[in-house]
Amino acid sequence: MGLPSTQKAAVKKGSGDTATVEVKSLDVPTPAPDQILVKINYSGLCASDKSLLHDEWGASGVAMQPQTQGIAGHEGAGTVVAVGSAVTDLWKEGDRAGIKWIASVCGKCEFCTNGVDECHCPKQLNSGFSIAGTFQEYALTDARYATRLPDAVKDEEAGPIMCGGVTAYVACKRSAVKPGQWIVLPGAGGGLGHLAVQYAKAMGMRVIAIDGGDAKRDLCLKLGAEKFIDFTTTKDVPAEVLKITTYGSHGVLVTAATKAGYEMAPHLLRPGGTMVCVGLPKDTSIIAGAHPIMMCMKKLNVVGSVVGTLKDVEEALDFTARGLVHPILTHGGLEDINRLIEDMNAGRLAGRAVIKIAA
Amino acid sequence: MGLPSTQKAAVKKGSGDTATVEVKSLDVPTPAPDQILVKINYSGLCASDKSLLHDEWGASGVAMQPQTQGIAGHEGAGTVVAVGSAVTDLWKEGDRAGIKWIASVCGKCEFCTNGVDECHCPKQLNSGFSIAGTFQEYALTDARYATRLPDAVKDEEAGPIMCGGVTAYVACKRSAVKPGQWIVLPGAGGGLGHLAVQYAKAMGMRVIAIDGGDAKRDLCLKLGAEKFIDFTTTKDVPAEVLKITTYGSHGVLVTAATKAGYEMAPHLLRPGGTMVCVGLPKDTSIIAGAHPIMMCMKKLNVVGSVVGTLKDVEEALDFTARGLVHPILTHGGLEDINRLIEDMNAGRLAGRAVIKIAA
Amino acid sequence: MGLPSTQKAAVKKGSGDTATVEVKSLDVPTPAPDQILVKINYSGLCASDKSLLHDEWGASGVAMQPQTQGIAGHEGAGTVVAVGSAVTDLWKEGDRAGIKWIASVCGKCEFCTNGVDECHCPKQLNSGFSIAGTFQEYALTDARYATRLPDAVKDEEAGPIMCGGVTAYVACKRSAVKPGQWIVLPGAGGGLGHLAVQYAKAMGMRVIAIDGGDAKRDLCLKLGAEKFIDFTTTKDVPAEVLKITTYGSHGVLVTAATKAGYEMAPHLLRPGGTMVCVGLPKDTSIIAGAHPIMMCMKKLNVVGSVVGTLKDVEEALDFTARGLVHPILTHGGLEDINRLIEDMNAGRLAGRAVIKIAA
Amino acid sequence: MGLPSTQKAAVKKGSGDTATVEVKSLDVPTPAPDQILVKINYSGLCASDKSLLHDEWGASGVAMQPQTQGIAGHEGAGTVVAVGSAVTDLWKEGDRAGIKWIASVCGKCEFCTNGVDECHCPKQLNSGFSIAGTFQEYALTDARYATRLPDAVKDEEAGPIMCGGVTAYVACKRSAVKPGQWIVLPGAGGGLGHLAVQYAKAMGMRVIAIDGGDAKRDLCLKLGAEKFIDFTTTKDVPAEVLKITTYGSHGVLVTAATKAGYEMAPHLLRPGGTMVCVGLPKDTSIIAGAHPIMMCMKKLNVVGSVVGTLKDVEEALDFTARGLVHPILTHGGLEDINRLIEDMNAGRLAGRAVIKIAA
Repeated sequence: MGLPSTQKAAVKKGSGDTATVEVKSLDVPTPAPDQILVKINYSGLCASDKSLLHDEWGASGVAMQPQTQGIAGHEGAGTVVAVGSAVTDLWKEGDRAGIKWIASVCGKCEFCTNGVDECHCPKQLNSGFSIAGTFQEYALTDARYATRLPDAVKDEEAGPIMCGGVTAYVACKRSAVKPGQWIVLPGAGGGLGHLAVQYAKAMGMRVIAIDGGDAKRDLCLKLGAEKFIDFTTTKDVPAEVLKITTYGSHGVLVTAATKAGYEMAPHLLRPGGTMVCVGLPKDTSIIAGAHPIMMCMKKLNVVGSVVGTLKDVEEALDFTARGLVHPILTHGGLEDINRLIEDMNAGRLAGRAVIKIAA
Repeated sequence: MGLPSTQKAAVKKGSGDTATVEVKSLDVPTPAPDQILVKINYSGLCASDKSLLHDEWGASGVAMQPQTQGIAGHEGAGTVVAVGSAVTDLWKEGDRAGIKWIASVCGKCEFCTNGVDECHCPKQLNSGFSIAGTFQEYALTDARYATRLPDAVKDEEAGPIMCGGVTAYVACKRSAVKPGQWIVLPGAGGGLGHLAVQYAKAMGMRVIAIDGGDAKRDLCLKLGAEKFIDFTTTKDVPAEVLKITTYGSHGVLVTAATKAGYEMAPHLLRPGGTMVCVGLPKDTSIIAGAHPIMMCMKKLNVVGSVVGTLKDVEEALDFTARGLVHPILTHGGLEDINRLIEDMNAGRLAGRAVIKIAA
Repeated sequence: MGLPSTQKAAVKKGSGDTATVEVKSLDVPTPAPDQILVKINYSGLCASDKSLLHDEWGASGVAMQPQTQGIAGHEGAGTVVAVGSAVTDLWKEGDRAGIKWIASVCGKCEFCTNGVDECHCPKQLNSGFSIAGTFQEYALTDARYATRLPDAVKDEEAGPIMCGGVTAYVACKRSAVKPGQWIVLPGAGGGLGHLAVQYAKAMGMRVIAIDGGDAKRDLCLKLGAEKFIDFTTTKDVPAEVLKITTYGSHGVLVTAATKAGYEMAPHLLRPGGTMVCVGLPKDTSIIAGAHPIMMCMKKLNVVGSVVGTLKDVEEALDFTARGLVHPILTHGGLEDINRLIEDMNAGRLAGRAVIKIAA
Repeated sequence: MGLPSTQKAAVKKGSGDTATVEVKSLDVPTPAPDQILVKINYSGLCASDKSLLHDEWGASGVAMQPQTQGIAGHEGAGTVVAVGSAVTDLWKEGDRAGIKWIASVCGKCEFCTNGVDECHCPKQLNSGFSIAGTFQEYALTDARYATRLPDAVKDEEAGPIMCGGVTAYVACKRSAVKPGQWIVLPGAGGGLGHLAVQYAKAMGMRVIAIDGGDAKRDLCLKLGAEKFIDFTTTKDVPAEVLKITTYGSHGVLVTAATKAGYEMAPHLLRPGGTMVCVGLPKDTSIIAGAHPIMMCMKKLNVVGSVVGTLKDVEEALDFTARGLVHPILTHGGLEDINRLIEDMNAGRLAGRAVIKIAA
């Protein structure tokens, strides 16, 4: 059964806050020797897609590159439909494969080989940033770096795990919070947050979820949070965290990309605690951290985290395969991306949006 | 041989930037059951003594307490001259003992018992902050928390190791820089910096020293730095660090308590690198850290470090006992403290000031 | 309300395999300045009590010392009834306290201060080994090292956590098995094993329980094991573990003190895996480990684990307080100890025996 | 300049203890798409080459495979003379390259991707074991896994670092001995030992070298050992180690493949110490480890170590490039291998033998 020569893709149009995507017909690409071509069944819609489409990080030097042809998306799940000439035993047509933010790494630099920093390979390619992403029916990715999807995880769940899931999971690991210790998750009911609640819970952590409203409360407690703090009705959130934890929490994940979120986080921590930076704000005036006297007197750790390694993604998927972590999904098609981004911006999106791409 | 009933002490006079110390005659204190009384032979003079005497950290809630009677000093070395009634086998008169910033911890709280955070015991007492310090001839300290001084380390060197040495040593450990990796030490020729150069070298790290002038260059290279960057003649220090290290250094210690120092540090790091906060600035507008996009995209670690545990101090002393780390000393007496603080403020102090206290 | 002058205690009688305990009347001891006297409500009965009473470890140089007056027991839970003269704010009469295998440590040696090895303090005292244990109505222990019992944990459960619980918990930690990875627990239905199943589960590990018979199967699965291997009906246990885990498990706890158990363990591990030694056999011919070619080619880790630190015990209790770990108890009184030891030897004991001590 | 069609190689002849190598003329191999062809300038001669040629590990299931054509050797250094068709930017003719024990790994399995265990990839190829080794003028290796040689390291030194150096270096890392702590190196004057002395020293460890005779003493002290114990004149080696270290050493590397060496090692350790297994004995009765009571009461760690990762090798080379580690070399040619193996067996070999291969 041959491949079609053309496909549908959601292509960036305009720039800045008013940029949108437009569904266009494009050529189906051909894999280079070390690539595979994946027919994308589902792709998650990540806040980073929105940021890149809206040129939000330009001031920090992070902007979608022409090579993407304006195609964002980095949470793809689908089926291999063609393999490059040098791909031998790794993949065959019909295998289920996931495409990630990191599409390729060099495999030879110190970051690729030191065992923990491959996500910082200077030669990496990124889906929807430096190569065309998953908002198209047929996407290319490096055969060595694509992710095999477990039978027990459906494509529509696998997609959001490719970035949102692994980001939440690795941030939990990076917090160094141990089983039985406290982690605070501001924005726990959101796209990343609701995944973090589940991973943290499955890792034996005690979760304090922060979000607003009874629906979020119910959701967070159902997903495994032990405590919920409603920021819309709580005057002093740090005081509430102290009340629950005596000395402050052991970790906090800053998934919200707001100045207020970054400023509050160190105040939630006990001595020796760790604040994990995850949310990537447009506002260049934000500094993640704390005053040196607080940093030292509380021996704080402020650490950055971004997606995860090939192995991290497999582990993140495994939690879903075992039934411990399930993304809450809002469905749509390529033509719904603009509306879903609006909903995301307005905080109206329940869980994670996932786009049905190929028929 | 009986103890005298009175002694000399350097007592705070005035407040704020113009505060000084005045040498006064005071009663010799008597040890509580679990304390020892140490005749102080030498006490180092730490930048924190200056900060506390000048009320610099008041805005951050850190201020010398009345219980000190205005006596600063937390780098004491001398001889036990009396032991409390409950002190049995730990100490006897004539033993050499060191007094530290941390004079006492509770030994029972989670920070005392988790093996890494005793310096954050909420019930700790601090010499020269919450109990009288070492700028007096006879100082009290908790028998369980005083430090036994090795034969091979003289009192005048042991004093500055009690805080300056252990601070430098623990900051090096906290950097997580491994043997063969790069550490950058801004202010490498200073009171803390010149100790950090020696500890880092002895721990197998490759040291890039940053300071100004040829005398500092000579000093740093002699103490073990592999590279020296003269910030007075180098236009772009981060570029120079990148040139030496290809991707940036693995660690940087911010010992300088300046805004510029804190702002530059993250730019010196390679992905996965660690910035250790040590210097405690008066300026409350400083945030140690970096923009979240830099934090995440470079997976940075920003961590606070303050002195060290009982065990850390023993280890720090051991490096001196083995001849690997020697503080460079500027000598003075109690009556010289005001002048030495002025010299410290003006950056005129070579190495670390050490005060000869008791005759 | 005054203390009685005499009390009941179970005292060792005879030696070797035929040694028993005899309930006698003894003086109630008086606390030294730094001790507390605890009225023991419940004491767990540990396999180590049996080994010490039966002189099993004499060949390894570990034998109950005369200072114990023949009183074993190191899993005590009760109420403080008297405090030594130097005990001020730590304890007051009426507080609930736990007594552990480690009754006292020096607090000053490198093992006490390095943050991880206080259980190896050369000056430690051990309940039922070098000082009288908890098989008596009123037992002494070091005030600084006694454990405060949480309200949510009853004495009869707290007792067995003092040694059995913390041993299982720390062994799980020492295995370095991470959330989502496999741990194998031979003897999972036994006194230590059934606690290990619960701790491992609460820490996010995937548990393969090994034991014999359907009752054990039901118990292990109910307590949280994901897989059960019945060694009485399984020909090749390592093959079965490989079948479940593909490459072998990440960790294995050897709680059974048998040669066969120690020999099989390394064969259950995947490359990089860790075997934790816990069971203390009488047989001096056993070597815990593997042939060097296996050790190297599989990069195995073989590590010893014994009880835990003061902090570890608090953590272990916290899991019980949170309802995640409950010892299964077989009850008895002082006069039942001989019979319960027989049952233990014969493998007839369900869960952990706990002795009701004081009225 | 074309390649010759034939080359010289040292090929295994006979089997068991009497096996030798014979210099033969063979075809020059052609690189597969992902391979490079390296003209071997120098190859180290490792004890493992001897073991494989003499079929010593057959009983443990480790035997040279037919695919090697009887060509051992896995410490090769030379120049790339041909690159496979799929090798693009990684290598070009004229580059200097090193060939290691691990010639290739899959890059996708959990061991390749977990960041620490690539040496345990089940699909790895090993030079001189499962593919032809470096005792030939032209050897093939995986382009992705070959090691770039630094300018500052000559081929004759680079060869022995490829296995002997990295093995010593990684074993030092695996010991977890920190700067300022003690490591014991039995056989410190030998092929692996003299490298371990230098790496340990450069990593800030304090080295106790054990070997026999004054020449070894002089060598070890010159290379950086702080203490030397002559086992030929010392009655009780463990007692001597205790005398130096008070409680025993923090680590010990067992490089000698003898039963006595493995039995003594745990007795040299302090509580919490680590014994690293490196030497691979023929004797199948050896168990690396200790009795469980010693394992637990001393909280020992017994760990296996074998070569190192791609990154480890680069780090090991970097120490040589920086002048901190130099193998002591005994030179020879292909025709000298039989004699050098005899010398190695007889303990007559100074340092490491290195074979000049291609003209």
